[in-house]
Amino acid sequence: MNKIILLKKQPFGKPSLHDFEFSTEEMPTPKDNELLLKTVYVSVDPYLRGRMSDAKSYIPAFELNKAIQSGIIAEVIDSHHADFKKGDFVSSNLEWKEYQISNGKGLVKVDENEAKLSSYLGILGMTGLTAYLGLMEVGLPKKGETLVVSGAGGAVGSVVGQIGKLQGCTVVGITGSDEKVSLLTSQFNFDQAINYKTTPNLKAAIRTACPNGVDIYFDNVGGEISDAVLSNINKYARLPVCGAISLYNETEIQMGPRLQPILLTKSATMRGFIIGDFAEKFPAAIKQLTAWLKDDKIAFSETIVKALIIFLRHLLICLMGKTKEK
Amino acid sequence: MNKIILLKKQPFGKPSLHDFEFSTEEMPTPKDNELLLKTVYVSVDPYLRGRMSDAKSYIPAFELNKAIQSGIIAEVIDSHHADFKKGDFVSSNLEWKEYQISNGKGLVKVDENEAKLSSYLGILGMTGLTAYLGLMEVGLPKKGETLVVSGAGGAVGSVVGQIGKLQGCTVVGITGSDEKVSLLTSQFNFDQAINYKTTPNLKAAIRTACPNGVDIYFDNVGGEISDAVLSNINKYARLPVCGAISLYNETEIQMGPRLQPILLTKSATMRGFIIGDFAEKFPAAIKQLTAWLKDDKIAFSETIVKALIIFLRHLLICLMGKTKEK
Repeated sequence: MNKIILLKKQPFGKPSLHDFEFSTEEMPTPKDNELLLKTVYVSVDPYLRGRMSDAKSYIPAFELNKAIQSGIIAEVIDSHHADFKKGDFVSSNLEWKEYQISNGKGLVKVDENEAKLSSYLGILGMTGLTAYLGLMEVGLPKKGETLVVSGAGGAVGSVVGQIGKLQGCTVVGITGSDEKVSLLTSQFNFDQAINYKTTPNLKAAIRTACPNGVDIYFDNVGGEISDAVLSNINKYARLPVCGAISLYNETEIQMGPRLQPILLTKSATMRGFIIGDFAEKFPAAIKQLTAWLKDDKIAFSETIVKALIIFLRHLLICLMGKTKEK
Repeated sequence: MNKIILLKKQPFGKPSLHDFEFSTEEMPTPKDNELLLKTVYVSVDPYLRGRMSDAKSYIPAFELNKAIQSGIIAEVIDSHHADFKKGDFVSSNLEWKEYQISNGKGLVKVDENEAKLSSYLGILGMTGLTAYLGLMEVGLPKKGETLVVSGAGGAVGSVVGQIGKLQGCTVVGITGSDEKVSLLTSQFNFDQAINYKTTPNLKAAIRTACPNGVDIYFDNVGGEISDAVLSNINKYARLPVCGAISLYNETEIQMGPRLQPILLTKSATMRGFIIGDFAEKFPAAIKQLTAWLKDDKIAFSETIVKALIIFLRHLLICLMGKTKEK
C-alpha cells in the first residue's frame, strides 16, 4: 500500500495532530506517457499554514481529505515518458505521498552532481529564490547600507543576510535563541544578531546595532518585532514583506501601530511579495546562487527528518516553534 | 508697521487661536541685491499641522515666536536685484508677513497671463504636483484599472481623481459630505463618490463601487477609511501614502489592523512620499498640468480668504475641519 498524508480538518490557531490523517491507498501504476515517482525530500514551510485555512490568500487552500502538497524532490522509479528515465531526480510541487504518478508536467530535473539533492528545495529552491529575489528586487540593497532581517535564523532569513553582506551592506539579524544568534554571526556572516526573546527593549537594541539607521528591513515575521524595526528606519527605506510568521496562527485580526505616518515621514516603501511574482527571474537567480554556492560564499543549514510518518511531526514543530508565545 | 503671524506655542491635539500670535514689526527696507515683497496669496495646507509640533518629520518644525512659513505668491514692490523688477510676481516658501525682504534665492517668477496667480499655489503648485507625481510615479495607473482616492474633496484628491480619469481609470472618491460627493461626480469627473460619514459599512460600499477591486489607493487620510479600502485591494495594488490627515491631530500613536498580512497576500506596495522626492520631475509635470489646464481637462477649486488676520482663522478651519470627530 502507498502511504499518504491528508488534511483532515482546518486547524484553528495552532495546528494539532488531529488536523491530519496518515492514511494508505492502492499503489499507483503509471500508464503511457506517465512516470512513477518516489518521494525523496519534502519541503515543510511556514507558508503551508496559510494553505490549511480557507482565508483568501495568494495560493488556494488545501482541500480537506486530500493529500497536502509542497515542494518535493522525487526519484523516477518507472518511466513511460520520453523525457524522463528511471534514476532521474526531479523537483516539483507534488503530493505528500510515498509514491505518485506524474505526466511530467511541472517537473524540473535536478542534478545530484551539481549540488546535493536537498539543496534544490532550499538554497537553490524556493527559500533561496525568495531570499535572493526579495532582497535584490524589493530590498534594492546598495553598498554601505544597513539591512535588518527578522526571522534571521530561518531558511530564508539566513540567506538574505549573507546576500546582503555580498552586496556590501551591514547586516543585523533578529532571531529567537542565543544559539541562533551565535550561528548567525559565526556561520552566516551577519555583523550582529539580536535575540528578541531576551532583549527587554528591542527598539533601543536595534538603534544601538544600527547607528546609521535601517535602510532595508527584510520582514519575515510581522508583529511587534517589525514595529521595533520600523521605528528605526531611514528616509527612503525599503521594507520587503516576505512573511508574517508571528501572525500565521492568529485567529483574529491583529492590531498594531498604524504604519502610514512612518511610511509618509520616511518616504518609505513597504512591499509584499511572493516568489511567483518574479518567475521570469528564476533562471538568472539560480545561476547566481549556484555560483555563490560553489565558491563557498553562501552557507545554508537544513533540518532533515527521516521517514514519511515523521514529516508530520516536523511540520508541527516547524509551525508551532515560530508562533508567538501566549 | 508690518503685520506678521507667529507660532506662540506648539498645539496639543487640535490647534487653537491661543497657539498663534498676530503681531507687528518694523517695516523692512531692501538693501543692494535685495527686494521687497508684498504677500498676495498664502497657501494654508494640512501638512503645516505637522510643522507645528516637534515630532521628527520630513521637514523641520516651526520655531516658536517666529513667523510661520508656507508657499506664498508675492508681488515685487521694490527691487535692488538684477533678476527682478517692480510688478513681478513670484512664488516661494516665504514667511507669513505682509511684507518681507528676499535676496532672490528660491523665488520662482510666475506669469499672470499663463494662469491665474492663485493657481501657482494650487493646481500648478504643490498640490497639483503632489497629485500628478504621486499618482504617476507611485500609483502607476494603467488604463482600465480602478483608482480609489480618499480625501477626494481636497485640493490634492480632486486633482488625483481627474488625472486618474485622463489615464483611463475608473475613479471612486471618498469624502466627508454630500456636497463634496456631488461636486466630485459633477465637476471633477469622478465615476462615483462615497460619503464615509453617512455610509454605515464603508468596506461593503467600496466593494460595491469597485466590482473589479481596487488597483490603486491614493491615501490622503489613513485610519479607518484606509482600512476599509485595503480590504478591497487587488493583487499587485499600489498604495501611495500622501497624507494621514485623520491622524494629524492625534496625540497618541494610533492602532489599526496590521497591514503586513494583506500586503503580503496581495503582493501590494504601500509607499509614502513627499513631493520633494520627485523634484527633478517638476518641470515636466508643470508642463503637463499647464497643458491640461489650458485644454480645460482639469478643474480645480480654491478656497480664498481675504486679509491677513483672516489667514489664521482659515488655517484653523482647515486643520480642524479635517480631523476625525471624537
